[in-house]
Amino acid sequence: MSPHIALNTDVPGIRGLLQYRPETGRPLAELVEVLLRGSNTLPRGERELIAAYVSTLNQCRFCASSHGAFAAAQLPEGMALVDRVRADPDSAPISAKLKALLRIAGAVQRGGNAVTAEDIAAARAVGASDVEIHDTVLIAAAFCMFNRYVDGLATVAPDDPEAYARMATRIIAEGYLLA
Amino acid sequence: MSPHIALNTDVPGIRGLLQYRPETGRPLAELVEVLLRGSNTLPRGERELIAAYVSTLNQCRFCASSHGAFAAAQLPEGMALVDRVRADPDSAPISAKLKALLRIAGAVQRGGNAVTAEDIAAARAVGASDVEIHDTVLIAAAFCMFNRYVDGLATVAPDDPEAYARMATRIIAEGYLLA
Repeated sequence: MSPHIALNTDVPGIRGLLQYRPETGRPLAELVEVLLRGSNTLPRGERELIAAYVSTLNQCRFCASSHGAFAAAQLPEGMALVDRVRADPDSAPISAKLKALLRIAGAVQRGGNAVTAEDIAAARAVGASDVEIHDTVLIAAAFCMFNRYVDGLATVAPDDPEAYARMATRIIAEGYLLA
Repeated sequence: MSPHIALNTDVPGIRGLLQYRPETGRPLAELVEVLLRGSNTLPRGERELIAAYVSTLNQCRFCASSHGAFAAAQLPEGMALVDRVRADPDSAPISAKLKALLRIAGAVQRGGNAVTAEDIAAARAVGASDVEIHDTVLIAAAFCMFNRYVDGLATVAPDDPEAYARMATRIIAEGYLLA
């Protein structure tokens, strides 16, 4: 299957879209750079895990595979942990705070009105700060955009896991900003 | 009801969030400025209509009310047309191209994988360009983010329609970029 529109590049997934329309590509790249790599009390690996989890719920193969690889490369437990979180965050060997934040992210994926005051209070009770709650909601919301953008235009997603591992190496070294 | 986190402002809806976290607020404001007001073959009023329609589907009262007001203020047929599109785009008195683009936007709202090759071909058959299809998908995807961001943090939405009409006057004069 080929993309729904004629992109001026063979670069797969979101990156081809960012290059196709740099007017929107620039702020989108800046947004994801701040959210997933900017200064934050949440480690980069955990923020990538939230992105990978939401992308899995949205069945976006490109984003789930790429952010899964980026999370695995930045968490000591690697892909085994990413797979456990994807299957069931509540039983995964992660902190109570990360579990509570993933529960908020899962609610955001269903819809903004699905997030309850109880979800927020539960996260706060295990130590989540206001900014961590804010960033979790915005990461989850942003991936509800990126996932729809990538699949809504039927961009190409590589089959080979090695392709995503190579992207991880580059993203960790260089970040998300466009050249 | 008050927001889930303590915002440092009483400004309602998305604008309070953009001010709360300017690191993410800046690229988000730039994104929406390019999408809804940047140079484009789709008139501003029609782009606001796509944003209002998706926000209505997502039941986001703040975004549906504000972008509905911004669309009404920039379309000759005003709020009567916005209400018809919200209720049923297919029977609304709009061009075949805008109907086809709203059908794509509705699919994106359900999920990226809901957009079919037939939806794209139908839009192309009534004159939609690749960039117009791209921008429609990204506007719809972006409002799946903004709607979740605004409601996932339970920001305040004014009840008075006049409040949204005043926002429309300001947005049309000054745009979305933060001061």
